[in-house]
Amino acid sequence: MRKPDRLSSQPLYQQIADDIERRISYGEFPPGSLLPSERKLAEQLGVNRSTVILAYAELRSLGIIESRTGSGTRVSKYKWGAMPKHTPNWHRYVEGGSFLPNLPFLRRIREALQKDKALIDFASGELGADLSPVKEINTLLDENHYTGYLGYDNPQGFVPLRETVVSYLKQYRGIQTTESSILITSGSQQSLYLITQCLLTPGDAVAIEDPSYCYSLPMFQSAGLRLFRLPVDSKGIRPEDVRSLYKKHRIKMVFINPNYQNPTGVVLDAKRRTELLDVASELGLPIVEDDPFSLTAYDGTPPTPLKSMDAIGSVLYIGSFSKMAASGLRVGWMVAPHSVVERLADARQQMDFGLSVVPQQVAAQFLKSKYIRPHLERLRTNLLYKRDLLIEALQKELPDLVRFSIPQGGLHLWCRIIPEVNDSKLLEEAIRHGVIFVPGSVYGSDSGYVRFTFARPKPDEIVPGISKFASALRTILG
Amino acid sequence: MRKPDRLSSQPLYQQIADDIERRISYGEFPPGSLLPSERKLAEQLGVNRSTVILAYAELRSLGIIESRTGSGTRVSKYKWGAMPKHTPNWHRYVEGGSFLPNLPFLRRIREALQKDKALIDFASGELGADLSPVKEINTLLDENHYTGYLGYDNPQGFVPLRETVVSYLKQYRGIQTTESSILITSGSQQSLYLITQCLLTPGDAVAIEDPSYCYSLPMFQSAGLRLFRLPVDSKGIRPEDVRSLYKKHRIKMVFINPNYQNPTGVVLDAKRRTELLDVASELGLPIVEDDPFSLTAYDGTPPTPLKSMDAIGSVLYIGSFSKMAASGLRVGWMVAPHSVVERLADARQQMDFGLSVVPQQVAAQFLKSKYIRPHLERLRTNLLYKRDLLIEALQKELPDLVRFSIPQGGLHLWCRIIPEVNDSKLLEEAIRHGVIFVPGSVYGSDSGYVRFTFARPKPDEIVPGISKFASALRTILG
Repeated sequence: MRKPDRLSSQPLYQQIADDIERRISYGEFPPGSLLPSERKLAEQLGVNRSTVILAYAELRSLGIIESRTGSGTRVSKYKWGAMPKHTPNWHRYVEGGSFLPNLPFLRRIREALQKDKALIDFASGELGADLSPVKEINTLLDENHYTGYLGYDNPQGFVPLRETVVSYLKQYRGIQTTESSILITSGSQQSLYLITQCLLTPGDAVAIEDPSYCYSLPMFQSAGLRLFRLPVDSKGIRPEDVRSLYKKHRIKMVFINPNYQNPTGVVLDAKRRTELLDVASELGLPIVEDDPFSLTAYDGTPPTPLKSMDAIGSVLYIGSFSKMAASGLRVGWMVAPHSVVERLADARQQMDFGLSVVPQQVAAQFLKSKYIRPHLERLRTNLLYKRDLLIEALQKELPDLVRFSIPQGGLHLWCRIIPEVNDSKLLEEAIRHGVIFVPGSVYGSDSGYVRFTFARPKPDEIVPGISKFASALRTILG
Repeated sequence: MRKPDRLSSQPLYQQIADDIERRISYGEFPPGSLLPSERKLAEQLGVNRSTVILAYAELRSLGIIESRTGSGTRVSKYKWGAMPKHTPNWHRYVEGGSFLPNLPFLRRIREALQKDKALIDFASGELGADLSPVKEINTLLDENHYTGYLGYDNPQGFVPLRETVVSYLKQYRGIQTTESSILITSGSQQSLYLITQCLLTPGDAVAIEDPSYCYSLPMFQSAGLRLFRLPVDSKGIRPEDVRSLYKKHRIKMVFINPNYQNPTGVVLDAKRRTELLDVASELGLPIVEDDPFSLTAYDGTPPTPLKSMDAIGSVLYIGSFSKMAASGLRVGWMVAPHSVVERLADARQQMDFGLSVVPQQVAAQFLKSKYIRPHLERLRTNLLYKRDLLIEALQKELPDLVRFSIPQGGLHLWCRIIPEVNDSKLLEEAIRHGVIFVPGSVYGSDSGYVRFTFARPKPDEIVPGISKFASALRTILG
């Protein structure tokens, strides 16, 4: 709904009533559908509840809406003509559908961020405006115009970008590949979605890290997969756990994020990497390696990817432009055997008819430009700076209440709250205090963990953000 | 594979062997995987079969590949180390997965178009380079830089584009809506995919036109839907058929493309539109209106969309930038009740984390620019010109062998071949003659229909293209 204009000569309640009537007539709220409660709408529009009560009364007197005790305020059904007419029961359609909705915590976070632009955002897992190479990307857009034909693109992705990714992977990640083994995707999320939809069948068992961002993705459940846990310790997952899950549950695939794991920040130990590849080759088991964070290595020496050590082709490698440059461009890539790339590209054609050429061209230009090295250096320096601001603030504000390991790369800090706390209460209290984060249970951990993304807030928001968080925590600890 | 360099001093077979070895070592062809047959590879690389035989012999002598009679040539399994190691059985993974592959005809067409760039393309359902406003889009990219933050975008799509689409729909399509009822998608394909995944449940019955491009989309089958047919006559579908399908099968949704229907070019009759909306409101049945072609109306007066007559909110409206401007930008939109938009946006976040901001900004700029009206005028004039070239050529080359109605808008001509022909034989013969089209059976019709997309080939390709098609047809008719 639109916030009423306080400078207008029309009363606030009348403006609200007019806006609602217009939206109903356009079909945004079809006959029979539920309108927001008076309390909620008042909060949303920043007006007194009595103003909304007046607006609803006005609409009720016109027969446009009806209120019944206990069932809220709805758009009238029989206003619209003499014959009984039925709007589809959209509610039932929305509740159906095989694809599961996002987790309630994640929807709550999105809603809170949309409503209150002043919230200090430790929740969104991406680079803040200070870290993205927006200027460089604009310069590239200036210097190189896309002049080609704007028809449907190659199903595997824009060929010049695939060629650039081949050189990039060789130079930055020690991975040897060819452009026909590359699938360009809109990011790691789409890569994972295609893998779960096209290479696995409902009922298949797969192994994921514990904790892991995979738990935050209903796509695994939507695909009907059975999830088994690989506990992450300070050296990452243990390869022998993979073998025992295979023996017990015949897992079909292993999903890991070995470099600065999301959410823990842990790097998989070098010896375990070799062992993991040995287990995979012993069992003929595919490993999906998601590697979005490695170029953020604060010391400038990213860990070696599994894929570069993968002699027999057990690893599907997923990379992305999002966490090293700009998530809003929506460009990622996958390295896989050609038959897998073809299958996934074919399915993606069915889902969205492929990617836009324009961002693919921008990503290709950036990856081979003179800007990338200075950008990465600046990114690392600034991430390290923001990490340290966060750590100092936590140590100052909550010295005895939190515990964490110090990440050496990536965007996140994984933090345990020592006293017992309820995730949901802490989140709501934090929002009331003007700060937001992701509760650990989203990643499948027990209550009492918090993921702070220090990459997202502005540097001068970190200290006040933690101070707000600390007050929120103290409030609920009583 | 890379075509060998005929100017190189290295023999062709050696270049081919080296390229294959490199690709095997990078994992493009993992141990155990099947290599192309000698004949196929020779064709693909444009060399004699004997050259490929020599290359394979070379690799066999190195133990890198193995050939067994009847089972083709495969990458060796035991070359790679002393221990028995197992590459995942990628073949089995690729054959599994719940998402169905594209239809064989469509994969064949894609393959043929990729292999032979000189094919005259009546198959790709999009605007050719002569019809897309590439220059205008480049000027806009020049004049307006995206300077905002390149973070994840709003799940419903870029707000300025949603606002522009609201004005566009009002001005060009007579549809009244608000930006909170708009979902930006990557095109009609993604809109349909989200609807089938999020609002319908496996086993649900839905009605689609016969013939219809929906048959070409395994997404309907992948979602487990039962499809029922609404025959299209010269005035479109008959509303009473919708009622009887509802009574018999409790259909949950109706998918139609009422303006210049793909593939037939038919416009749904005005009286039937009113009746259809009455049936929908009587049954509380949602109608999905896909409306990509209406602005191509050759006389400049597009048919009125169902959505603009939809008083009670039965219609989900799908529009797109693809068929009126540029398919390669990947921008489309949907108008739906807010609860539907929210559900679909939430699910899309799970699948690909939303759209790139860059093409959305370009689309918004174009839709409100001074370029759009002249572009649409030019588009209509040129489409009409190309349609007439096609009709004249068909009448001249095959006067007694084909029959068709003359479309008044859209990109396609739907053509019946009067003598009995086999779709598959005709397609293969046409490809041999240097021309390609989509066989009617892809759209669920009987054998002997052809969809010619006259929008795609260059104007000077249309007459020679039909002449090649005519020779192909005469060849198989004997």
